[in-house]
Amino acid sequence: MNKSVTLRRLLEGSKLFRIVGAHDGLSARLIEDSGFEAVWASSLGISVVHAMPDADILTMTDYLQATRVMNSAIDLPIVADCNAGFGNINNVIRLVHEYERCGIAGVCIEDKVFPKTNSLFPGEQLLSPIGEFAEKLRKAKSSQTSPDFVVIARVEALIAGLGFDDAVKRALAYEEAGADAIVIHSKASGPEEIVEFMARWRGQAPIIVIPTTYPRVTLQELEGLGIRAAIYACQGLRSSIRGMKEVFAELFCGSGPSCVENKIATLEEVFESQRTHEWVNL
Amino acid sequence: MNKSVTLRRLLEGSKLFRIVGAHDGLSARLIEDSGFEAVWASSLGISVVHAMPDADILTMTDYLQATRVMNSAIDLPIVADCNAGFGNINNVIRLVHEYERCGIAGVCIEDKVFPKTNSLFPGEQLLSPIGEFAEKLRKAKSSQTSPDFVVIARVEALIAGLGFDDAVKRALAYEEAGADAIVIHSKASGPEEIVEFMARWRGQAPIIVIPTTYPRVTLQELEGLGIRAAIYACQGLRSSIRGMKEVFAELFCGSGPSCVENKIATLEEVFESQRTHEWVNL
Amino acid sequence: MNKSVTLRRLLEGSKLFRIVGAHDGLSARLIEDSGFEAVWASSLGISVVHAMPDADILTMTDYLQATRVMNSAIDLPIVADCNAGFGNINNVIRLVHEYERCGIAGVCIEDKVFPKTNSLFPGEQLLSPIGEFAEKLRKAKSSQTSPDFVVIARVEALIAGLGFDDAVKRALAYEEAGADAIVIHSKASGPEEIVEFMARWRGQAPIIVIPTTYPRVTLQELEGLGIRAAIYACQGLRSSIRGMKEVFAELFCGSGPSCVENKIATLEEVFESQRTHEWVNL
Amino acid sequence: MNKSVTLRRLLEGSKLFRIVGAHDGLSARLIEDSGFEAVWASSLGISVVHAMPDADILTMTDYLQATRVMNSAIDLPIVADCNAGFGNINNVIRLVHEYERCGIAGVCIEDKVFPKTNSLFPGEQLLSPIGEFAEKLRKAKSSQTSPDFVVIARVEALIAGLGFDDAVKRALAYEEAGADAIVIHSKASGPEEIVEFMARWRGQAPIIVIPTTYPRVTLQELEGLGIRAAIYACQGLRSSIRGMKEVFAELFCGSGPSCVENKIATLEEVFESQRTHEWVNL
Repeated sequence: MNKSVTLRRLLEGSKLFRIVGAHDGLSARLIEDSGFEAVWASSLGISVVHAMPDADILTMTDYLQATRVMNSAIDLPIVADCNAGFGNINNVIRLVHEYERCGIAGVCIEDKVFPKTNSLFPGEQLLSPIGEFAEKLRKAKSSQTSPDFVVIARVEALIAGLGFDDAVKRALAYEEAGADAIVIHSKASGPEEIVEFMARWRGQAPIIVIPTTYPRVTLQELEGLGIRAAIYACQGLRSSIRGMKEVFAELFCGSGPSCVENKIATLEEVFESQRTHEWVNL
Repeated sequence: MNKSVTLRRLLEGSKLFRIVGAHDGLSARLIEDSGFEAVWASSLGISVVHAMPDADILTMTDYLQATRVMNSAIDLPIVADCNAGFGNINNVIRLVHEYERCGIAGVCIEDKVFPKTNSLFPGEQLLSPIGEFAEKLRKAKSSQTSPDFVVIARVEALIAGLGFDDAVKRALAYEEAGADAIVIHSKASGPEEIVEFMARWRGQAPIIVIPTTYPRVTLQELEGLGIRAAIYACQGLRSSIRGMKEVFAELFCGSGPSCVENKIATLEEVFESQRTHEWVNL
Repeated sequence: MNKSVTLRRLLEGSKLFRIVGAHDGLSARLIEDSGFEAVWASSLGISVVHAMPDADILTMTDYLQATRVMNSAIDLPIVADCNAGFGNINNVIRLVHEYERCGIAGVCIEDKVFPKTNSLFPGEQLLSPIGEFAEKLRKAKSSQTSPDFVVIARVEALIAGLGFDDAVKRALAYEEAGADAIVIHSKASGPEEIVEFMARWRGQAPIIVIPTTYPRVTLQELEGLGIRAAIYACQGLRSSIRGMKEVFAELFCGSGPSCVENKIATLEEVFESQRTHEWVNL
Repeated sequence: MNKSVTLRRLLEGSKLFRIVGAHDGLSARLIEDSGFEAVWASSLGISVVHAMPDADILTMTDYLQATRVMNSAIDLPIVADCNAGFGNINNVIRLVHEYERCGIAGVCIEDKVFPKTNSLFPGEQLLSPIGEFAEKLRKAKSSQTSPDFVVIARVEALIAGLGFDDAVKRALAYEEAGADAIVIHSKASGPEEIVEFMARWRGQAPIIVIPTTYPRVTLQELEGLGIRAAIYACQGLRSSIRGMKEVFAELFCGSGPSCVENKIATLEEVFESQRTHEWVNL
């Protein structure tokens, strides 16, 4: 079964599932080893490990290359965070061609204007006109070669402060344009915007959320609202940053490397994540 | 001042300095922010974030690309871990051309046979004949275009169990072939091999060690032995793995993402590492 | 002498020089071997060898990678055709960082809107407001780390049908913003637009032209107008296409490969272009 | 129908077919447009457009990237020339994973020792022991995930001067190890070695030849010998070199660009090869 089909079944299922953000092959592998169902090839994560802001300064090629490494590392399906499609309709066509050709399960495109900035940056966000973005989605769907490839539309209306009517209108237009699922993003500190959106939503497409700023929501609550998937977008990245910052700070002050020995993975754990024993006779 | 000159001054100084292993742009940036003097573009680290064993399965192109990202992220000089030179003399020539052209401060080549495996993998290690490896070094040095570019030779005699006479003979031959510094690697659980090597060493080249398996050694002890630099090769990587494993395990069992909130970097910390405010009006 | 200095001296000289379009390492090498002074890393050429239209569908990363290969192949300075800067000001900053870091002599940015299309495609062309593009140039100049790196501004006013006043106004604004030279592009079938532009031009920056659609102009005429350089943008690419189309057509119909033997380079010629004898004992 | 199946049907057919060497997306596209059945992603060609000798100095990553671009450009199946497998068995496993994952129809691996040199370079060629290379093939076949992916073994015994017995023995061992077809390479100036090999061959695997040095052989003769495919490996590359050398030489001496106007493709021909009209409203 190809990965797009796996992702499609998760989306068509009745259970809420989790899509966990990865930023490289290692984090993708650890997500898989932890038992999760799907991976989010996070634009924020990929940007951060390149030491670049999440603002479309990296290119589609950079994101694709990082996603390809993740996809080689795991059997789980990946949803690739493809920002605003990296430009106009031609750029969307190319991205669908390239991501599908590499066996990535699906892509997610958001209705911002290129170059986008991260939804959680303070400051204004500019969105595409609805019809223009719907046209991108229509072209994305008609550019895929297998019927299984998944195209998800991300609605940024609540992020941009355009209100619920606009959010619902966008979500419906994107579903109608062929989107296989809808991400409704919110940066509220609680789930209230998501609750309100779901109360107004009458479409059929599975709905996905990203509870980064409202982490106290429970999976049970989300399932109760009819949400199909939650993207845990950046917790892995943030745990990695926390770990490294602490260890580098101690190493810097320490009289030798042993000061961090009990806070870091053993060499055996390191080798294990690459299945080293399958490659090298140890 | 270019980065090769910076590295050269550190090597020619009298103080022991630390070269800290990075695996991507983020870890390189955090090393710089922590105050260290130099970065080790670790073959193990780069392999692991590609979810591949450290066994020359990744290519020079893969390593170079990762190192280029690190080099863009920091002002510190980078020593690129270039395994056994990725093949024969032609491959060494190309690697010197490519790394120098990108502004990498220096490279380190070890006297193993291609494809190498990580020195800490159990099992046998096959080394190049001394003369053959010295010839690689001679060619490396004559291939650099600026006199500043640094080529470091790594002696694996102790790793391969060939004894101190062979180790010293190799180190001298490599110094004679033009190596700007010598890494003497050991996988003993204490510094005794390094102590013995330094007792026998009569060369002029600065000596560098990698105390991964003997972390209880102190910088003071190393400095007392006349060691110029210590490579903290994989502590950053291992802290990242530890952090992610714990957080993914808790997230998997948790009722929502909040369970890890106090164990991960804040969003502000995340954005800070890319100097987001210098790029985007927040 | 670094390549940016070489390019700068050509631009500051009094003689007209030619910048010849390359699309890969081979064509760059053949241009160097033919005696020319500089290479144009052509967006059209790089797009075409990727089998993609010249319409910003390839990414900065794709162009940079191709240009890096060219730059490794030759000692000549390269002017990299960087379209409209690949996005907004942040994308311009990154391109300057990346191209300069790789030792590319200079870049050329045009005042179109991203995603641009090739100037010789029929149909409308949309230009940036003058001030906005001047701001990109100012940022490009302040982002370079060496004073030698060259940033060239390309004026598309005549291509877009905006007239001579606008063209001259743009050229002056771009010079004032720090551009080291100005490309004035025209798709007229003779040099008349260039003649008129030069009659009105009062700036100090060296002027460069691209006589693709008006090839009957002579170097003497251009020099007489005060033009500093002519970009022979796509003749190499077009000779390659002509050669391959003819040979593939004959091969397809032929009873064996010998039918094209007298129309193709010998194996010795092939090996010679990579200086094979310097690498391999033949 | 996926491309591996298309290639497999050609190999299992009864008609001789031609596999034409490409070096980039453009040449692959022109081969397809000319009516041929399959493309050879030539190591020589890819090396030459990188201005590097065909001697395993480029990496698997470089070759893969070039092949991926070709594969995006065409519907024809590609046989990727993978030299000696880029190292040991682990490198072979990775190459199979990577090429298959990108949708390349098949790979060809030759029984030389890494780093290989081009078979037509003068000088000695060192081959792998038969059993060792057969083991690589066995591992290649067991590493593919779809049964359709094609692995071709290339016998270099005649190139290395090891004689017909060795050549036949190798071919049989490789067939037995799972190779889907056998390339028997010869650098004789006529087809006599191929004739002799075919007289002795008793295997079932389809046989492929590369008549670079014996171009006067006809397809009819080859078909009469029972050959299934002929690789026209480098004629496209050589026509491109011939075309560019002539045009650059004339341009260099000419008084302007018009001197080559009748020897180069028109702009319309250039735009046509990328199907520009399908992307851009002209």
